[in-house]
Amino acid sequence: MPGPDLRHHGDAEVRDGGAGLTDLAVNVRSDTPPAWLKEKIAASLDGLAAYPDGRAAREAVAARHGLSPDRVLLTAGAAEAFVLLARALKVRHPVVVHPQFTEPEAALRDAGHEVERVLLREEDGFRLDAAAVERVPEAADLVVVGNPTNPTSVLHPAATVTALARPGRVLVVDEAFMDAVPGEREALAGRTDVPGLVVLRSLTKTWGLAGLRIGYVLASPDVIATLEQAQPLWPVSTPALVAAEACVTPRALAEAGHAAHRVAADRAHLLAGLASLAPRGVRVVGPAEGPFVLVRAPGAEAVRERLRGAGFAVRRGDTFPGLGPGWIRLAVRDRATTSRFVPALAAALGP
Amino acid sequence: MPGPDLRHHGDAEVRDGGAGLTDLAVNVRSDTPPAWLKEKIAASLDGLAAYPDGRAAREAVAARHGLSPDRVLLTAGAAEAFVLLARALKVRHPVVVHPQFTEPEAALRDAGHEVERVLLREEDGFRLDAAAVERVPEAADLVVVGNPTNPTSVLHPAATVTALARPGRVLVVDEAFMDAVPGEREALAGRTDVPGLVVLRSLTKTWGLAGLRIGYVLASPDVIATLEQAQPLWPVSTPALVAAEACVTPRALAEAGHAAHRVAADRAHLLAGLASLAPRGVRVVGPAEGPFVLVRAPGAEAVRERLRGAGFAVRRGDTFPGLGPGWIRLAVRDRATTSRFVPALAAALGP
Repeated sequence: MPGPDLRHHGDAEVRDGGAGLTDLAVNVRSDTPPAWLKEKIAASLDGLAAYPDGRAAREAVAARHGLSPDRVLLTAGAAEAFVLLARALKVRHPVVVHPQFTEPEAALRDAGHEVERVLLREEDGFRLDAAAVERVPEAADLVVVGNPTNPTSVLHPAATVTALARPGRVLVVDEAFMDAVPGEREALAGRTDVPGLVVLRSLTKTWGLAGLRIGYVLASPDVIATLEQAQPLWPVSTPALVAAEACVTPRALAEAGHAAHRVAADRAHLLAGLASLAPRGVRVVGPAEGPFVLVRAPGAEAVRERLRGAGFAVRRGDTFPGLGPGWIRLAVRDRATTSRFVPALAAALGP
Repeated sequence: MPGPDLRHHGDAEVRDGGAGLTDLAVNVRSDTPPAWLKEKIAASLDGLAAYPDGRAAREAVAARHGLSPDRVLLTAGAAEAFVLLARALKVRHPVVVHPQFTEPEAALRDAGHEVERVLLREEDGFRLDAAAVERVPEAADLVVVGNPTNPTSVLHPAATVTALARPGRVLVVDEAFMDAVPGEREALAGRTDVPGLVVLRSLTKTWGLAGLRIGYVLASPDVIATLEQAQPLWPVSTPALVAAEACVTPRALAEAGHAAHRVAADRAHLLAGLASLAPRGVRVVGPAEGPFVLVRAPGAEAVRERLRGAGFAVRRGDTFPGLGPGWIRLAVRDRATTSRFVPALAAALGP
């Protein structure tokens, strides 16, 4: 595959020689999973000898979005969902709107598809606007878009996203980070009036369950049935099912709502710090609505190396189609971490 | 798909209205996972916020079989391995040797393949012998066989299994129950001299980890690379990786070896009980070498229903190609359970 390494992910920046680094590379909320959730998962270990039974979790997720269970498929993380979509659907002309999370395109290519890219532009603030919608070819029968988008942190209006829907087209909206947006503004999860809509959700980021592999797909019953047919038997582990059920209770949703507001406050602190570096050429894509921000910085590659030397891992931007080596992605962390980070970034920018 | 329901599995017999039944339907060792293993898995929950890193587990599994890590792929249970094999390999003429676990054929059919069946025969003791090997068409470029075989409990000689290997043919040997055979006689895991050999292993049965989804594939580096390419990102959860590493330590292997001998003793007790019912028409496929036995009983369907009424769930046999409604599969349980079960079976056989 030519071009950027679509299979590079932030965890590699922390993992490979990154022990001891403060992690601003991976978009998982820190201090997670919470103790109550960890206890529920631990209690599930007593039932490990039995094969997983996903029915209760599926019903709980369906109820959380006001849907019937036949519109829900639990998956071993959103990553499994991308593979199922790429392999199980009859698709001839898939289009991925970039920059965005690279796994959907990687999964489509691995399944043998040619993938067309539609690039959102820096000068448009990486926003999906009416002009961008028009650049998606009419022949596209699968369109993938993230909302809010990783790595740009841009939240597209729901009405613009749904303008991508067509009869005969599958519209995949990756809402892996939507629960980090207060009120889940612009969410399409739960909508049944958009033709071909497929919404992906993750429990990984907000709940700190990256290691557990749990996410879900919301779509029409026929698409869900097709994806389910391509899934391995017992695709989601019992601890992950227990976690899914626990994370969609009203209490958990309220806690996620609080966390979203805290992320917004923490992000404001990070943005203020970055704004102070504007005279040094640091530019932030905005408005940022996700638990991470995309930053353009002069000499970003050297800056990233110097930051590693100073104890901070950040996510390189050059592996995202439509970005170049001038970009880095920063996870939103607590104020104290950010207050340590901003001076380090200032120093890393050089004289 | 015509014929038996390949997607029926023993867990359904316990799950659907089976609460409170003594489970002889599911082939997972009871009283598992052991406390030390559960503790290790519980400790892994502290690291759930990080994405899974499968490298250490892969190396540990490779070392356990004396292989290099590029000959090992960890999977979310053997079920994922079947899907990967069915979808990622370029196969034109797959053959499944039956009766056996039905998922390999189901996964191949779901991936669009036509599957030819070669049936082992009751009159041959369901043994893979030289004549059966000859009945596998030369054109077959993928052959799947289980050893020891579920549901027949027959252990085929390694030399007969390897007689199925050909240049240009992938030979898949499902050794999911091999670690329940004392000394793992007839195992092919670790062999690198058999062309096209793919061995599947499970940690589910011996260690009581059915709910965790963990297994692995052993094959040549090129086959492993092809399967890995088709796998979702982060396919195996952190708790499952921790369990895999823990289950291949010398201490764990010794414990599995003891368990295999205990299974053999418990099976002998079950076989003695069943032999006492021979005058009533109960016939057992033998020699049984797995942690379950296959039984032919007059009026098996009614017997199964009466056993449910008496508090015992057993596995129906009619969903296995090559068997009919006259068969049931019984998991080997401890002596006390078996001593309760045999009289219940005697009563269920009717007057």
